[in-house]
Amino acid sequence: MNKRIFPLLFLTVCFFSRTTAQQKVLVFQSDFGLKDGAVAAMKGVAVGVLPDLRIYDLTHEIPAFDIWEAAYRLHQSAPFWPAGTVFVSVVDPGVGSERKAVVMKSKSGHFFVTPDNGTLTLVADALGIMEVRIIDERRNRLPNSSGSYTFHGRDVFAYTAARLASGAITFAEVGPVTDGIVRLNYQKPSISNGVIQGTVDILDVQYGNVWTNIDSKLVRSAGIQAGDLLNVSITEGATERYRGTVLFGNTFADVAQGKPVAYLNSLMNFSLAINMGNFAKEFGVASGPAWRVSVQKHNK
Amino acid sequence: MNKRIFPLLFLTVCFFSRTTAQQKVLVFQSDFGLKDGAVAAMKGVAVGVLPDLRIYDLTHEIPAFDIWEAAYRLHQSAPFWPAGTVFVSVVDPGVGSERKAVVMKSKSGHFFVTPDNGTLTLVADALGIMEVRIIDERRNRLPNSSGSYTFHGRDVFAYTAARLASGAITFAEVGPVTDGIVRLNYQKPSISNGVIQGTVDILDVQYGNVWTNIDSKLVRSAGIQAGDLLNVSITEGATERYRGTVLFGNTFADVAQGKPVAYLNSLMNFSLAINMGNFAKEFGVASGPAWRVSVQKHNK
Amino acid sequence: MNKRIFPLLFLTVCFFSRTTAQQKVLVFQSDFGLKDGAVAAMKGVAVGVLPDLRIYDLTHEIPAFDIWEAAYRLHQSAPFWPAGTVFVSVVDPGVGSERKAVVMKSKSGHFFVTPDNGTLTLVADALGIMEVRIIDERRNRLPNSSGSYTFHGRDVFAYTAARLASGAITFAEVGPVTDGIVRLNYQKPSISNGVIQGTVDILDVQYGNVWTNIDSKLVRSAGIQAGDLLNVSITEGATERYRGTVLFGNTFADVAQGKPVAYLNSLMNFSLAINMGNFAKEFGVASGPAWRVSVQKHNK
Repeated sequence: MNKRIFPLLFLTVCFFSRTTAQQKVLVFQSDFGLKDGAVAAMKGVAVGVLPDLRIYDLTHEIPAFDIWEAAYRLHQSAPFWPAGTVFVSVVDPGVGSERKAVVMKSKSGHFFVTPDNGTLTLVADALGIMEVRIIDERRNRLPNSSGSYTFHGRDVFAYTAARLASGAITFAEVGPVTDGIVRLNYQKPSISNGVIQGTVDILDVQYGNVWTNIDSKLVRSAGIQAGDLLNVSITEGATERYRGTVLFGNTFADVAQGKPVAYLNSLMNFSLAINMGNFAKEFGVASGPAWRVSVQKHNK
Repeated sequence: MNKRIFPLLFLTVCFFSRTTAQQKVLVFQSDFGLKDGAVAAMKGVAVGVLPDLRIYDLTHEIPAFDIWEAAYRLHQSAPFWPAGTVFVSVVDPGVGSERKAVVMKSKSGHFFVTPDNGTLTLVADALGIMEVRIIDERRNRLPNSSGSYTFHGRDVFAYTAARLASGAITFAEVGPVTDGIVRLNYQKPSISNGVIQGTVDILDVQYGNVWTNIDSKLVRSAGIQAGDLLNVSITEGATERYRGTVLFGNTFADVAQGKPVAYLNSLMNFSLAINMGNFAKEFGVASGPAWRVSVQKHNK
Repeated sequence: MNKRIFPLLFLTVCFFSRTTAQQKVLVFQSDFGLKDGAVAAMKGVAVGVLPDLRIYDLTHEIPAFDIWEAAYRLHQSAPFWPAGTVFVSVVDPGVGSERKAVVMKSKSGHFFVTPDNGTLTLVADALGIMEVRIIDERRNRLPNSSGSYTFHGRDVFAYTAARLASGAITFAEVGPVTDGIVRLNYQKPSISNGVIQGTVDILDVQYGNVWTNIDSKLVRSAGIQAGDLLNVSITEGATERYRGTVLFGNTFADVAQGKPVAYLNSLMNFSLAINMGNFAKEFGVASGPAWRVSVQKHNK
């Protein structure tokens, strides 16, 4: 091989390692819905930065202004994306006000570009914080957009995320390091005398499954295993919404159609479903801190 | 040109012909909806297999557990994708139970990765079965996912489909060949004494058009051509829902706004619409085996 | 460097400049919804033309047959995409009738592939018309699709747009030049004695913000600046729907939660919102020519 090719090869390798470090993968989340041109405007800005970015959607159906759900949906899917993926989450009721615009790099190597309003709470806990930087909007803002105050999703977040994912800027060039992030308060599950207490974190909305914050470790520490019967109750504040004895199965089909079943969901958290039915609808269950779940082994 | 380049060129060509054989195109369908992180988790797994896969959505709005509609939507769009495209369809009420996870290669060269629960019925008939293989989950499963029983869309189907589309595994490496597939019963249209009998396969939901299973060949064999008037009735079980004399046109605008029209739809099946209106809503028509359609030429 | 490489380099550059001229970026809009296989059939056709097209969605949730909204959503997002982007918009109640199928090249270098039914009205005014060509369907139509009359989105528009975006045809090869386009009538805002009159162009549906056609220039010419109080009224025909004195802020958070605010939206048009609320729902405001807005500075 011609020796002169070596420097070129080296440069090529550097080029690729630099760009593939962040995979050029960009994932958008928002509460914009899909009915108008807002999501497409963000993507257009990103494509304008680099046409060969690989652009995906997490969801745009976060309920308007619902920061908790934004935090949860990131938490639900980010770990399944390769390190280097850049997530943009825009649920931003404080747009244009003093809330910070940040990029968090997690210990897992993912990047999260978002208003610092609590959206990062769950991924910070689950994936670990490597470093958080404030977006320096003097340098990292869509050119000629300074007159626009209400669409930082397009003018700041999409633009900066695309430049980061494409390698046009490094993480350090985002802006100065900041200490910590805004965190939402959220309850941790507990166990006492074999009774697990937790909350309904969120609904698996499409099927009406009830996802709690009780993880598999707690379930095991209560001595519960597949095939056991469990006493389960769900209360909203002081009102009981559900009380029953339920099989703890591996999957929905472990019970007859129309019957309730407890199981570990795809995030390995304790959950409740009706096989081929809708548990949340049938029992009027919703999610949030007021929705408490109690689980213990049924003594035969 | 330096002769030493030839082997390299040859390897390059082999590499490309191997990978482009399946185009790296992956198309997802599910009943997950777009409100949460489930679809994004599947895509993250696929991107983790190979970032430069070309990933698309068929639909994620299949009604929960509706295998017939999953079968129909594949049938409606798969033929318009190039050979080598890998489809993943996850409408999977039996997830984690004994239903098989399979990959079907059609005679048209498309691949379908899905639970074997009837989803393949219509594409198997329309495109022909080349070979069906059972996914060997010991080898073809997202690493470290064995504790998860309820999200094979992410852990088995997306992972296997991405590996197949990327060339990481060959079709043979999916797993052992199996005989045949689970098929849904569905009715075939018939003709007798110039009267065509069929069923309402599905609604063109956005516009309320009624799509039947009566194909263009049957229409022609009844001597019907554009410009003819037809006697059409639609019954649900024993109840007549619609009876009328309708123009058989080429397109909606062949009748005045607000008037019903019969036509061949984009799959060349006999259909009914109201120009600028909603036939299904106006006459309370739905789809399924109970919905029978009768068509014959109107004798002036 | 070997001299023989030069011609190759030159060819390579030509190849890239030809193809990247149009960036291979294709953006789809329609009123098809996302529940069935129609959008996927269009994308399959495009991928069949060239698998490495970069395909995006503007929205598919345009209300059925609503050409005004199709025009508006193009206007809202097209300017944020790079020159060379090819947009396909299929809101096509006249499919298969005599309405023309066209491609418009704007002075900004964007391409718009659409039925010529008014969809181009706003982008033509905002971006300027460079040239409009009628699609010659004898050459630019999905092979073997001539029997299909009701899905030009798939058979004509997606196919032609993909061929244009991929470089398979040049703009000139689309078909013959035509004069002008079909335009929707729409009202222009006006100012008289410091009172600005305009209409509600559209709602920012997800949040219930009210977007008018009053641009920032008119606002400035009325001497209005951030921090001013404004007298605002909204009428539907002869009925007053809203009258109030509102702060003209930069962003939502300039007023307390639950309070109305006036601001310039992301297109720099005068708009009304409730901070963390839904203005349109609260006051029963919708959009269209019947919805008139009046704005003037409040004299303290």
